Amino acid sequence: MAKKTTKRSSKPAPKKSAKKPAKKVVKKAAAKSAAKSSAKSAAPRMIYYFGATRTDGKASQKLLLGGKGANLADMTSIGLPVPPGFTITTEVCDLYYKNGKKLPAALMADVRKYTAMLEAELGKKFGDATSPLLFSVRSGAAQSMPGMMNTILNLGLNDVSVVGLSNATGNERFAYDAYRRLVNMYGDVVMNVDHEHYEEAFDKIKLKYNAKLDTDVPTQGLIELVAAYKEVYRHHVGEDFPQDPFKQLELAIEAVFKSWMQNRAVRYRQIQGITGLVGTAVNVQSMVFGNMGEDSGTGVAFTRNPSTGADEMDGWKPQIYKQLLGVKKTLETHYKDMQDIEFTIENSKLYMLQTRNGKRTGAAAVKLACDMVREKLITEVEAVNRIPASDLTQLLLPSFDPAAKKKAAVLTTGLPASPGAATGKLAFTAEEAVERTHAGEKVLLIRKETNPEDIDGMHSAAGILTSTGGMTSHAAVVARGWGRCCVAGAGQVEIDLKGRTIHINGKTYTHNDVLSIDGSTGEVMEGAVQTQEPALSGDFATVMKWADKYRTLKIRTNADTPADARRARGFGAEGIGLCRTEHMFFEGDRIKAMREMILAENKEARVAALAKLLPFQKEDFAGLFTAMDGLPVTVRLLDPPLHEFLPHDDANQAEMAAVMGVPAEKVKRRVSQLHEANPMLGHRGCRLSVTYPEIVDMQVTAIVEAAIECKNKGINAKPEIMHPLVGTEKELALLRAQTLEVIAAVKAKHNFKGKLDITVGTMIEVPRAALTADEIGKHADFFSFGTNDLTQMTFGYSRDDVNNFLPDYLAKELLPRDPFQSLDTTGVGQLVKMGVAKGRSVKPDLKVGICGEHGGDPASINFCHQAGLNYVSCSPFRVPIARLAAAQAALKYPKGAKK
Amino acid sequence: MAKKTTKRSSKPAPKKSAKKPAKKVVKKAAAKSAAKSSAKSAAPRMIYYFGATRTDGKASQKLLLGGKGANLADMTSIGLPVPPGFTITTEVCDLYYKNGKKLPAALMADVRKYTAMLEAELGKKFGDATSPLLFSVRSGAAQSMPGMMNTILNLGLNDVSVVGLSNATGNERFAYDAYRRLVNMYGDVVMNVDHEHYEEAFDKIKLKYNAKLDTDVPTQGLIELVAAYKEVYRHHVGEDFPQDPFKQLELAIEAVFKSWMQNRAVRYRQIQGITGLVGTAVNVQSMVFGNMGEDSGTGVAFTRNPSTGADEMDGWKPQIYKQLLGVKKTLETHYKDMQDIEFTIENSKLYMLQTRNGKRTGAAAVKLACDMVREKLITEVEAVNRIPASDLTQLLLPSFDPAAKKKAAVLTTGLPASPGAATGKLAFTAEEAVERTHAGEKVLLIRKETNPEDIDGMHSAAGILTSTGGMTSHAAVVARGWGRCCVAGAGQVEIDLKGRTIHINGKTYTHNDVLSIDGSTGEVMEGAVQTQEPALSGDFATVMKWADKYRTLKIRTNADTPADARRARGFGAEGIGLCRTEHMFFEGDRIKAMREMILAENKEARVAALAKLLPFQKEDFAGLFTAMDGLPVTVRLLDPPLHEFLPHDDANQAEMAAVMGVPAEKVKRRVSQLHEANPMLGHRGCRLSVTYPEIVDMQVTAIVEAAIECKNKGINAKPEIMHPLVGTEKELALLRAQTLEVIAAVKAKHNFKGKLDITVGTMIEVPRAALTADEIGKHADFFSFGTNDLTQMTFGYSRDDVNNFLPDYLAKELLPRDPFQSLDTTGVGQLVKMGVAKGRSVKPDLKVGICGEHGGDPASINFCHQAGLNYVSCSPFRVPIARLAAAQAALKYPKGAKK
Repeated sequence: MAKKTTKRSSKPAPKKSAKKPAKKVVKKAAAKSAAKSSAKSAAPRMIYYFGATRTDGKASQKLLLGGKGANLADMTSIGLPVPPGFTITTEVCDLYYKNGKKLPAALMADVRKYTAMLEAELGKKFGDATSPLLFSVRSGAAQSMPGMMNTILNLGLNDVSVVGLSNATGNERFAYDAYRRLVNMYGDVVMNVDHEHYEEAFDKIKLKYNAKLDTDVPTQGLIELVAAYKEVYRHHVGEDFPQDPFKQLELAIEAVFKSWMQNRAVRYRQIQGITGLVGTAVNVQSMVFGNMGEDSGTGVAFTRNPSTGADEMDGWKPQIYKQLLGVKKTLETHYKDMQDIEFTIENSKLYMLQTRNGKRTGAAAVKLACDMVREKLITEVEAVNRIPASDLTQLLLPSFDPAAKKKAAVLTTGLPASPGAATGKLAFTAEEAVERTHAGEKVLLIRKETNPEDIDGMHSAAGILTSTGGMTSHAAVVARGWGRCCVAGAGQVEIDLKGRTIHINGKTYTHNDVLSIDGSTGEVMEGAVQTQEPALSGDFATVMKWADKYRTLKIRTNADTPADARRARGFGAEGIGLCRTEHMFFEGDRIKAMREMILAENKEARVAALAKLLPFQKEDFAGLFTAMDGLPVTVRLLDPPLHEFLPHDDANQAEMAAVMGVPAEKVKRRVSQLHEANPMLGHRGCRLSVTYPEIVDMQVTAIVEAAIECKNKGINAKPEIMHPLVGTEKELALLRAQTLEVIAAVKAKHNFKGKLDITVGTMIEVPRAALTADEIGKHADFFSFGTNDLTQMTFGYSRDDVNNFLPDYLAKELLPRDPFQSLDTTGVGQLVKMGVAKGRSVKPDLKVGICGEHGGDPASINFCHQAGLNYVSCSPFRVPIARLAAAQAALKYPKGAKK
Repeated sequence: MAKKTTKRSSKPAPKKSAKKPAKKVVKKAAAKSAAKSSAKSAAPRMIYYFGATRTDGKASQKLLLGGKGANLADMTSIGLPVPPGFTITTEVCDLYYKNGKKLPAALMADVRKYTAMLEAELGKKFGDATSPLLFSVRSGAAQSMPGMMNTILNLGLNDVSVVGLSNATGNERFAYDAYRRLVNMYGDVVMNVDHEHYEEAFDKIKLKYNAKLDTDVPTQGLIELVAAYKEVYRHHVGEDFPQDPFKQLELAIEAVFKSWMQNRAVRYRQIQGITGLVGTAVNVQSMVFGNMGEDSGTGVAFTRNPSTGADEMDGWKPQIYKQLLGVKKTLETHYKDMQDIEFTIENSKLYMLQTRNGKRTGAAAVKLACDMVREKLITEVEAVNRIPASDLTQLLLPSFDPAAKKKAAVLTTGLPASPGAATGKLAFTAEEAVERTHAGEKVLLIRKETNPEDIDGMHSAAGILTSTGGMTSHAAVVARGWGRCCVAGAGQVEIDLKGRTIHINGKTYTHNDVLSIDGSTGEVMEGAVQTQEPALSGDFATVMKWADKYRTLKIRTNADTPADARRARGFGAEGIGLCRTEHMFFEGDRIKAMREMILAENKEARVAALAKLLPFQKEDFAGLFTAMDGLPVTVRLLDPPLHEFLPHDDANQAEMAAVMGVPAEKVKRRVSQLHEANPMLGHRGCRLSVTYPEIVDMQVTAIVEAAIECKNKGINAKPEIMHPLVGTEKELALLRAQTLEVIAAVKAKHNFKGKLDITVGTMIEVPRAALTADEIGKHADFFSFGTNDLTQMTFGYSRDDVNNFLPDYLAKELLPRDPFQSLDTTGVGQLVKMGVAKGRSVKPDLKVGICGEHGGDPASINFCHQAGLNYVSCSPFRVPIARLAAAQAALKYPKGAKK
């Protein structure tokens, strides 16, 4: 499918691809061997030609030719119509510096030799008055590198050859426009002449010819502009614009080499830790022009539909289309993938400027992979490896209709916290969201940030929009868990809670206005943008089947309700890796009993309150065990600090006091008593179990009674009881003993004689737990890495506060990515590996999993596989992603996790 | 010095020493070898005798004889008058269990044999009607173990021998009192008869004889009581109280063995990880009585004055004193230390029941050690090893006069947060403390908790008392840093801020009342208790000289002011290991400039505000460099989150707004903006430097300008610039580059051509920093472990909140000690060792120190020495402690830190 063509524009060059952080480490050995092989002859080869005459370089010679040079050579060598040229090697750059910043003596003679080869091939002459050969000059190191030199186009034009160009093309305006661009660009890039001075000159000409736009200036004006630009050049450089084309080329080559040691480039390499590169290459390529008239143009195209994966390309004149089809076949046969190409058509002739594997949607990726296996273009393994696992999300959630979205007014963009598309009226409190949803409305819950008390409202709402908080804020984590659409941290959304309005960039919306939010992009849009439901193709099932064939990691899900559990099982989950029991304490009567427990002044009163929670918990667990019949269900005992179950504002405290029949002062006092400076590092997790063992008694009783109930019905319940936040061996020893005692007591009480398959293990989420996993492991049947908290404590980053500095850290590239999204394998990963190794040093068969947010992140899954984990656990909607990522990891590291 | 004697009481036994957590690991090998040696003969020896006839056991046979049995043998063998007896070995206990809970067939025959030996030695007969031999029976394993069997006294009494005892002593009342005690104790301990039943019987007798106290019951009543007790016994046990003395003994021995597997004892061993013990021994010892009349008694004594160390013992009748002096000489020659003895005098004859090294004050420890070196009793090295380093604190601070303190009314006891003695009227705010101190009053600052805004008031006050917070709360840490007396977390102190009163257990005190607080014990006392100033003896200097001779660790101090620096240098500090620059931002005009910086809305405004702070900082640093002329001064750049510099209540915010000339709303908004859920893990440390590089510019400029100023005056300034909270290599790379740039720029600006000895390093306080120390080390001239934060993050314990569960953890022995007081060598220590090893893997000579609170804790210093650190840094008053502890560590581990 061709995307666009811009005629009459001067865009002959491969468009500069967005800089992305590339691989940092360059193999020195390779650099050395290249140097060695070229050292065979006395003088190393300095220039590599690519063209019809011959092509010297290869795709594998990135270190010597730079990324761009190697790619141009590769395209040429497979017979694509690439404008010919030559690449000056990175070694010449090295020589330049070793030489005290002088070009090697023989270089320009070589340049003339290869220029002559080009002239012969193209039938043009460099600097010629009749049919001049023109060059583009570009830098190009082995890695993309900001701070290096910009492109120079049209090199070779001078007062003589401009006339030649004019004659050859029959287009004087075009020729002088090209010339004035060269003088401008050359002064700017090679000689550091401030661009402003050229602007001033242009403005004068436009004024003279009463031209509003640059394109309104007539040919005569452009001729005068060339003269004016040359004067600007002379004035600021101190000498005339060089008329000798080879002089132009020599200075441009030197300018590229100089840019290698520019501050910006040096600093970039230092900060990125890029070492082992000897310099940049210089690419000198013959110019082709897409702005020569009606039968010229430039364009980009995909060789197949990148949105659906369908095998279609369209939109071009028949003659061009035929050339394009030929190119497509060559490319797909060579690269064995759908290509995103850039090309120029000069007088109906197609020239290839660049090709790369095309970006695609998740749906397209699945279809393309399956199609190409059927076409025998690729193997099943290649297909599995090729689909970006995280892109599968798009297949599983409703999305906005792209056409409708194009027309929508985007008001602001927050963080894409949980993918999906949601539309609704604005609800400002959780209660309001619940009520209005019950009344049949579709609402978006709008909050500064959410907390566990909002859980009902969050569940009712079609989508969640918060003005603060990051990718791992409460709203984001909970929403992802449910597959609920969420945009978080949309800082431009000002919420007026009392007025029930929000302000976004000057616009105001009330509770009756409709907005749409795109959880995959973070966009907040006005009105109801039309959505489309996902359609899972048969190809999807095929890919999943392949993935399951190759992966060795088990995939579980994080689920707290039977509905979530069933959904996840439908997506292929092989158990529950994390059931957060505290989520069960918020609904209806439960919160009242929970609060009674918290307000209780002695153990007896706590036990009495807990007794009220027991039947609820038991029912919850029975539901989960039933949904997961035959599969393991890891139940984490109470984790959050108790204050999370109490209201923090006066009004709600008063209401709670009324409901409980206690003085408001008592509630307030208890809240204040439970207040902590750093609740994340406070009285929570197993620390609650140590101070209130009666909570463990109740929860374990509920688990065991539910399991017995299921077993008696023929349902194979397989509970795994997990103690959170353990940091010392003795904590787990104590709690394990208590847990086993309760299990035995409940079995005895119910006179259950059968086998109950209940294991007792622990989260490893405190750094100390990983460091002492050989001690803790003695008391654990399994480990589950809680990498959310482990990341918080290993970095010392509070998830709730990290957005105060994380954006700076990412912008300054102090961190490669948000460590809460993708596991920090360098630091946190060491603790994970240590925990696995130490745990298995005392229990070789210790089952080890991960249940942090990272369990659904492909890079992290790859790491987990390598670290030898048994399973990862992720939110239901990420289960297919995890299955695919686990297969990719297994194919990459056959020595990782074992089935 | 003899302490007390209690006549007419029945305390013939070694008093039960307070159970303390003993060493956990028992050498299995030793147990095996003991078992092996006893296996030489067909039947292993079951009983070891101690007495005048012969003594079979040795001090080294703890595993076989238990701690008590080995000690009784040792005392006997050096000729002390110990009541003779015998010990049944722990192996017999093992046999008992292997035998299906039956005593070995030959045991009782052996018991009879050794009883006969005792009878011969003492001229008494077991169960005799004339002069009966009585026994005490006690359990005694190799380690002190709660849950084991209690002592049984007077065993051997029956209806016959009680008459014999009465006749032999001429004291019928004494004899029947002893008999009724035996029946009671025996029923209770051996037969599990509830003590209440005996109480009921006693009450009836008392009623009958109209006796208020037990001692008011006449002899006839006691005779009836014996009968009543025997009836209680018969009723509950189902058989008569055994009249056969050997039957009594056999059942008692079996009861001891049974107690070894009692739940409480088993659980204790499991939780404490005690393994390798085969069982408990049984000690059967002849009774002596201190309640035989005027020339009898029991007592405890120290062989020298435990308070001063003076060589004096006093308070006893001449005849006894002479015996005691003989015992003292024997003991001190044998144990080479001052002894704390327990003894009984039976009819003017002294019997030794127990001896152990005597507890002593710091002053006494120093004097005793020096005296004993002079007496050639011990060597210099032994003297250095013997003085508990932390006890030196007592020598350096004023303390309460013990006599005056004895009379004082202790109102409540908080945590001994910072030692010393302070007396004063009550001040309720920092401002009040400053004002009233200026006005000449001595005040105690009373706060719920303190924060950095209170710093002036804390400094002014004579002492600080807080009602919340732990040993590492702000108040505690700051107070210890200054050597200011502080009692923290005194929960019973209720503060009424408005009423300017406090309530303690029903009593009320106003701002005009005087209290005294003892920072060494946590006691809060009424009125002004008299204090005494420390007098540093020549012995103190001698001990310090010895310590310096042996230690290899350098000792630095944590100091923020020249006064602290000078004081610490006086105590022997060899540099500053931590200067917390934020403490410099609170005084006077500084806080205003700081707040301007925080409120600034752009970089320019921040730079302008910082410019006002520069001269203050420069002056501060110049003062520190001067005080530490020639010694290194580590300056930590700004560390705390910015909100700590802003007021959090409405009134103070309004006041601040007025001072700054901005709307109060702006202050409130900024405070709210800076609010964090977990500030400890938030935007602080080098994260501030990354987002506000201008702060680094200012602070480094101040350091370098101060250093230049000093150098120009001939003062050898040696600043070390330390970046806090670094967690990734790139953070430090960025900040190091910036720091070096500023240093170069300031040198250039001041045209300073000399050598500036400035290094740039980092705190290692985030777990990730330790894990990646090989990366971070590339950019650091030194590491300083910030073990306070490292402990917080490694355990996941917020220092400010840990008291919500730490008491439970210590009570349940889940933690051996507060990890903020003494470094957790198992967990946190791994990260320290890893940090050192990884850092030195890239820089073999990397200088590494520690500047957390642990730097002044002897056990932690011992660890730091072993870990190969170069220095520890502690508060000024702990420098002598650290010097001594470092010497002890060096003597213990010659392979640790190198000079």
